Amino acid sequence: MAVYTEVADEELAAFVARFGIGELLAAKGIAEGVENSNYFIHTSEGFFILTLYEKRVSEADLPFFLGLMEHLSGKGLVCPRPVRDRHGEALGRLAGRPAAIVTFLDGISVKRPSVAHCRSLGEALARLHKGGADFHPVRHNALSVEGWRPLFAAAAARADGVRQGLASQIEAALTQLEREWPKNLPKGNIHADLFPDNVFFIGEEVSGVIDFYFACTDALSYDLAVCLNAWCFEPDNSFNLTKGQALLSGYQRLRSLTSAEIEALPLLARGAALRFLLTRLVDWLNVPPGALVKPKDPLEYLRKLRFHARVASAAEYGLSA
Amino acid sequence: MAVYTEVADEELAAFVARFGIGELLAAKGIAEGVENSNYFIHTSEGFFILTLYEKRVSEADLPFFLGLMEHLSGKGLVCPRPVRDRHGEALGRLAGRPAAIVTFLDGISVKRPSVAHCRSLGEALARLHKGGADFHPVRHNALSVEGWRPLFAAAAARADGVRQGLASQIEAALTQLEREWPKNLPKGNIHADLFPDNVFFIGEEVSGVIDFYFACTDALSYDLAVCLNAWCFEPDNSFNLTKGQALLSGYQRLRSLTSAEIEALPLLARGAALRFLLTRLVDWLNVPPGALVKPKDPLEYLRKLRFHARVASAAEYGLSA
Repeated sequence: MAVYTEVADEELAAFVARFGIGELLAAKGIAEGVENSNYFIHTSEGFFILTLYEKRVSEADLPFFLGLMEHLSGKGLVCPRPVRDRHGEALGRLAGRPAAIVTFLDGISVKRPSVAHCRSLGEALARLHKGGADFHPVRHNALSVEGWRPLFAAAAARADGVRQGLASQIEAALTQLEREWPKNLPKGNIHADLFPDNVFFIGEEVSGVIDFYFACTDALSYDLAVCLNAWCFEPDNSFNLTKGQALLSGYQRLRSLTSAEIEALPLLARGAALRFLLTRLVDWLNVPPGALVKPKDPLEYLRKLRFHARVASAAEYGLSA
Repeated sequence: MAVYTEVADEELAAFVARFGIGELLAAKGIAEGVENSNYFIHTSEGFFILTLYEKRVSEADLPFFLGLMEHLSGKGLVCPRPVRDRHGEALGRLAGRPAAIVTFLDGISVKRPSVAHCRSLGEALARLHKGGADFHPVRHNALSVEGWRPLFAAAAARADGVRQGLASQIEAALTQLEREWPKNLPKGNIHADLFPDNVFFIGEEVSGVIDFYFACTDALSYDLAVCLNAWCFEPDNSFNLTKGQALLSGYQRLRSLTSAEIEALPLLARGAALRFLLTRLVDWLNVPPGALVKPKDPLEYLRKLRFHARVASAAEYGLSA
């Protein structure tokens, strides 16, 4: 959480001027976002977020991310809408970085989601999937099953230093997932990182979905598996079935899962847990000295992985028959 | 520039609710402010800044700072206005820290002030001094002349490591200032830290003055001396006389300097330069490992101190006879 690139206000004002959104009235660096630098912007025409993309986001992917956000906001999903400049471009450059301006969304993210939050999230996710169905650009999910072994390779030698036996547990789960990973589930554009800090609520209703910088084209039900991991476990790593029920029924109110998706759900949930276990483990083992951001605990996802390994059917996540 | 204290959104919403400023719609940590943690807050009734006061601000001084801001905003100076809660209190506690909510001000700070900015600043400073004249609480200026020797003592032994001869130059300036420091200049409530990052502009006009956390009761013309140092030097440390003229004439349009103040101005400017030289030197020598904030260069103020040492009269700052 930091502003990695500092921009002089004068430079920022000149950049904003190209977008036809009125005179710059205020700009504040925002202390959140681990990947990019964000500024809150007030102009005579409204409120916006200016993002400078730092190295971890590939510049070649930005048109996909911005295009998807623009498409979804046109479909009524509340997500940031990129502003196009006078030449019709959403992507510009500022302080040597790719940069874009999107609309500001109200809402606060919740640290401890309630059952009602999970239900509203399920509905929002289904809207995202349905709204994205006719967005045609494709972005491969580099962090799906074939991306996990390279991640593991980067961490395997030191994994047991984090916890004795971790490497062999990951190896076993990975081998099984590589063998059994479903190939023919309904695909579409997914968020792929829909954690509570990427969702805004006003009261109990989702008011906005942000941070599309892992969005990609993959199995829709994998997104649901990410959400089961990120929203339905309690701080003690127990699974809250009522939250699972709310998430799944909220989703199915707008989009019914196919029988193949339902059958695959435990496997997808295991895969999602392994994906976050692996990326967190790599980050954990590679914290730069003096880092601003405390890395997230990878072992939280080992515990979730173990839970999913014991799940026999989607009913155990709260899916009603 | 950082948020030192992280507050869960739920806690923050509960705090905001006490102030009768509507429902919390958004909250973002702001990546600026070296002393405190700041959050930008949007509620159904408007925009606010929530500040959590960290250790460097003495809790006992907060009623003075908040009271002065409230008083000045009542007098038409555009500065943050503290919001009082339902019990009439402006100061509360959040996440174990003293905390207050003030109104949000539009405007952007300028890194390279123009002549017009300096003129508008001079006028705003005079309004601040006139508006503060009937605010009766008193806060001693701990960073005036009698505070400088203790600061020097904390840095003297290592000063020559920053620059050969620095300790003896400071010693000479300090001894002279202690002997000659004027005692009977018109006093009042001053800002005492009116650097460009504490002033917002819309176009060329001051739209807001912020960060009153060094405000105190001292010679009004000392504030002007701080501004001459902070606003009228170019990046190469040359003094821009046109900016000095604009600052001083903007000020005198609303408040005329007495002959004693005019006579004292070179000495006050030297004192202000020494004050920032000393505090920057102490910070420079005490950077904690892994610090987020790069300390400011103390030697910039050594060069300014030398400039002022050669100034014979206020005319050299651009004061018209």
